[in-house]
Amino acid sequence: MNGLQLKLQKREKLADQLYGQILEQIVSGNLGEGTKLPSENEICASFGVSRPVVREALRKLQSDGLVYARQGVGSFVKRRPPQGLIDFGGVSDVAGLLRCFEARIAIEGTTARMAANRASLRHHRDIQNALKMLEDGIAAGDIADKADLDFHMTIARASGNEIFVTILTSLHDVMSKSMMVALNITRGGSKERAQKVLNEHRQIYDAIVGGDADSAELLMRYHLHQARQRVTDHARDM
Amino acid sequence: MNGLQLKLQKREKLADQLYGQILEQIVSGNLGEGTKLPSENEICASFGVSRPVVREALRKLQSDGLVYARQGVGSFVKRRPPQGLIDFGGVSDVAGLLRCFEARIAIEGTTARMAANRASLRHHRDIQNALKMLEDGIAAGDIADKADLDFHMTIARASGNEIFVTILTSLHDVMSKSMMVALNITRGGSKERAQKVLNEHRQIYDAIVGGDADSAELLMRYHLHQARQRVTDHARDM
Amino acid sequence: MNGLQLKLQKREKLADQLYGQILEQIVSGNLGEGTKLPSENEICASFGVSRPVVREALRKLQSDGLVYARQGVGSFVKRRPPQGLIDFGGVSDVAGLLRCFEARIAIEGTTARMAANRASLRHHRDIQNALKMLEDGIAAGDIADKADLDFHMTIARASGNEIFVTILTSLHDVMSKSMMVALNITRGGSKERAQKVLNEHRQIYDAIVGGDADSAELLMRYHLHQARQRVTDHARDM
Amino acid sequence: MNGLQLKLQKREKLADQLYGQILEQIVSGNLGEGTKLPSENEICASFGVSRPVVREALRKLQSDGLVYARQGVGSFVKRRPPQGLIDFGGVSDVAGLLRCFEARIAIEGTTARMAANRASLRHHRDIQNALKMLEDGIAAGDIADKADLDFHMTIARASGNEIFVTILTSLHDVMSKSMMVALNITRGGSKERAQKVLNEHRQIYDAIVGGDADSAELLMRYHLHQARQRVTDHARDM
Repeated sequence: MNGLQLKLQKREKLADQLYGQILEQIVSGNLGEGTKLPSENEICASFGVSRPVVREALRKLQSDGLVYARQGVGSFVKRRPPQGLIDFGGVSDVAGLLRCFEARIAIEGTTARMAANRASLRHHRDIQNALKMLEDGIAAGDIADKADLDFHMTIARASGNEIFVTILTSLHDVMSKSMMVALNITRGGSKERAQKVLNEHRQIYDAIVGGDADSAELLMRYHLHQARQRVTDHARDM
Repeated sequence: MNGLQLKLQKREKLADQLYGQILEQIVSGNLGEGTKLPSENEICASFGVSRPVVREALRKLQSDGLVYARQGVGSFVKRRPPQGLIDFGGVSDVAGLLRCFEARIAIEGTTARMAANRASLRHHRDIQNALKMLEDGIAAGDIADKADLDFHMTIARASGNEIFVTILTSLHDVMSKSMMVALNITRGGSKERAQKVLNEHRQIYDAIVGGDADSAELLMRYHLHQARQRVTDHARDM
Repeated sequence: MNGLQLKLQKREKLADQLYGQILEQIVSGNLGEGTKLPSENEICASFGVSRPVVREALRKLQSDGLVYARQGVGSFVKRRPPQGLIDFGGVSDVAGLLRCFEARIAIEGTTARMAANRASLRHHRDIQNALKMLEDGIAAGDIADKADLDFHMTIARASGNEIFVTILTSLHDVMSKSMMVALNITRGGSKERAQKVLNEHRQIYDAIVGGDADSAELLMRYHLHQARQRVTDHARDM
Repeated sequence: MNGLQLKLQKREKLADQLYGQILEQIVSGNLGEGTKLPSENEICASFGVSRPVVREALRKLQSDGLVYARQGVGSFVKRRPPQGLIDFGGVSDVAGLLRCFEARIAIEGTTARMAANRASLRHHRDIQNALKMLEDGIAAGDIADKADLDFHMTIARASGNEIFVTILTSLHDVMSKSMMVALNITRGGSKERAQKVLNEHRQIYDAIVGGDADSAELLMRYHLHQARQRVTDHARDM
C-alpha cells in the first residue's frame, strides 16, 4: 500500500484513529498533493477495519477539504496543511479549526446580512473602530487578534439577534485560536497577503454601511472561506 | 395618537421599553392587524424620546415579523401573536422565541445540507427513529417535544461537525421552550395542521436519505419558517 | 440483469438513449421505487457501452430526482413519474419539465427576493390581481395557467431587472407547458391539494408586500420545489 | 438644489429620464461620491414629478449600486463609474451592464454549484482549456474575451441542464459587451489586478474539479460581484 501505513491501537473510535493517521501522512508529506489514496478495499483488508469505518474517516477528510473523491475512481490528496500549523496546534486541532470556520460561514454569513439590514449608526461606528484597530495593528506588525475578534463580534451585535452573540461567545476560545493561527500566517506572509486580508474586512464593512445585505453575506462568506483556505493552503496562496 | 399609549419608566433601555409597550398593544388587539402605527415624529414628540430610540424599537418589531414598513408611508401591524402564547411566556419570551427561530434557520439549514452530504446509514436510522417517535407521539395526542428535539439534534450530529451539536445544545432551553409552544399550538390545532407539521419533518428526512443537499437545506429552512409563523400567526394558518 | 433491458440503436448520443430507456423502465413500473439498478459494470458489459456513457445517463437520472446513489452501494429508483404525465408529454418532455423547474428555482428565487426589496405599490396591485384570478380560476375548476404565468411574470417585472423578464419570456413555452402539467395534476387532485397550491402563492405574495426578502426567496423556492415534486410524485402527495 | 439640475422632456417614462439625468450628474462628477441627493420632496417640487416617479428612479440607482439610502436621512452617492466606461457605452449601457451582472450572479452561482456536482472528466478538461487560453491571452496583453466567455459557457454546459446554456446564449450580446468592458478595465489596470482576475477564475475551476459545490457557488458569485464592482469602482480597486 503505497505511502500509507497505519497502526490501529484499539477498537474504539477506529474512524477517528484512521482519520488522524491519514492526516499525519498528509501533513508529513508522505502522501503528497494529488496522490491517490489506497482503495477502500485495500484499507479494509490491510487493517482489519470494516468499510463503514473507512468511509467515515474519508468523509471527515473530505469535509476538511484535505481529500477529494472522484466517483468510481478513488480518493486523492487535495491539500497539505502547513507544518507550522501542526507544530502550533497538533493534528486534532487542525481538524477543529477547519470545523470552526465551516460553522462560522453559516452563522456569520447571516449576521453580516442582518447587520446590513438592521445596524444603527452607532453599530456602524463600532465596526469602523474595530476595522481601524485591525489596520493599525497589522501595519505595526502585530497579529491584532483582539481587533479581528471585535470586528466579528460587533457585526453579530449589529444583527439585532442576541442569540448570535451568545453563539459566537461560546465559540470564543476556538475562534480566538483560529484567528491567531490565521493572523500569524498573515503576519508571516507577504505584504500582498496582509493587504488582501484587510481588503476582505473593508469590503464587508462597506456592504454593511451601504445597507447591501446580499453583498454583505457574500463577502463575509468569502472572507471566512479564504481564511479557511489560508490555514490549509499556506504555501500556494501568494 | 390612535390606539397607542406609552408609559416610559426610566431613561435606561428606552428602546426595549418602547418595544415592549408597542408589542403589548399588538398582543392585546389594541393595535389591530393592518393598523398604521403613529409616525416616528409623533412617537418622539409624545414621549420625549429621541428618534434613534424610536427607530431601534421599530427595527426590533420588524425583525420579529410583527410590524412592516412601507418606505415613505410608515409602519403597519403585520401580525398579532396568539393570546395563549403571551399567557404562556410573557411578552419578553415572545421576542426570544422569534429570535431563536431566526437563528435556527441559519444554523439548521446548514446542518440539514451537510447531513444530506455526509450522513452514514446509522445516522439515517437515528433520524428515522426520531421521526417515528414524533409521528407516534402526535398520533397519541402528546406534544412529543423530546422526539422533535431528537430529530433536530440527530441531524446536527449527522452533519459531521460537532460544533453545530454544541451550539444547538447551548440553545437547548430556549429551543425546548419554542418546541413546546409550537407543538402545543399544533396539538390545539386542526388535524390538518398536525399532518402538515409531520409532512415537513418527513420531507426533510427524505431529502437527507436521498442525499439531496439543496432540497434538505430548503425544506429545513421552510419548516422553521413555518414553525415561526405558527407562533405569531396561530389563527390564520388553517 | 433484473428488470432492465436496453436496446441501443446507434452510437450517437448513447448516454441520452440509455437515459431514455432507463426512464421508460421506471415510468412503466418495470423498475419499481426502491429497486436497485444494475451496477455500472453490468450495464457496461451487457450493452457494450463505456463507463462514461453509463455515468452520464445515471447522472441525468439523479439530477431529475428519479434515481439516487448510495456511495459504494449503487443506484436506486427514487420516484416513478405518473403515467398520465408520460401520455401527455412523452418521455423526453418529462426530463425537460424537471430541468425547467430546476432553472426556475435559481431564477425566480432571486426575482422574488428583489421584488420584496424593490416592488412599487403598482407592482403589488398587479401581483394581487394575478393571485385573485388564480384563486377564482381554480375555484371554478379551471386550470388557470394564464393567471399562474401572470403571477410569476409580474414578480419578475417587480424585480426591477428587465433581464429576468427576458429570460422568463424565453422560457415561456416550456414554462406554460410545465404549468399546464402541474395545474392539471392539481385539478385532478384533492381539494386539499388545490388549497395547498393557492397557499403557496399567497405566502409568496404576503412576503413580497411585507418587504421580507429572505422569506420571499425561501417561499418561492419552496413553491417551485413542491411543484417539481408534484410532477414526479403525483400519487404520494396527499 | 445643490448640484442637481434636471430637464424633463416629456411625460412618458419620467422615471427613466430622471434616472438617466441623475446618473449623468454622478458620472460627470457634478454629484461627487458621498454627496447627499436632494430630498424626495425637493425633487418632486422642483420638477413637477410625482413621488412614485422619484422613488422609482432612486430605487434603480440603488439597485445599480450607485446610490444608497439611510433610512430617515436621505440618499447619497455611493460610487462614480469611470468616465471611460461612459465613453465606451453611453449612460444607458452602464445600467444594462450592471443589471446583466446581477442576473448572472443568480444564474451562474447555480451553474457552478451544479457543475461541481455533475461535471464529467471531459467537462473538467474543457473548463481547464478555457482557463489556459484566458491565462495565455492576458499574459500576452489581449483582452481574451472569447476565452472568458468559453469559461463561463463550459461551466453552464457542465451543469447538466441545457436551459442554463440557452439562457446564457440569449444573454450573449450583453455578456460579451460586459466582458469586453471588464477585461478592458483589467488590461488597463495594474498587473496585480490581472492576477486577481485570473485567481478568481482558477479558484472556481479548482472548486468544480474538487467537487466542492458550496465553494464553487460562493466563488462564482464572488467573481461576478467583483467584476461588477470593477465596472463602477474602477479607480479605487488597487
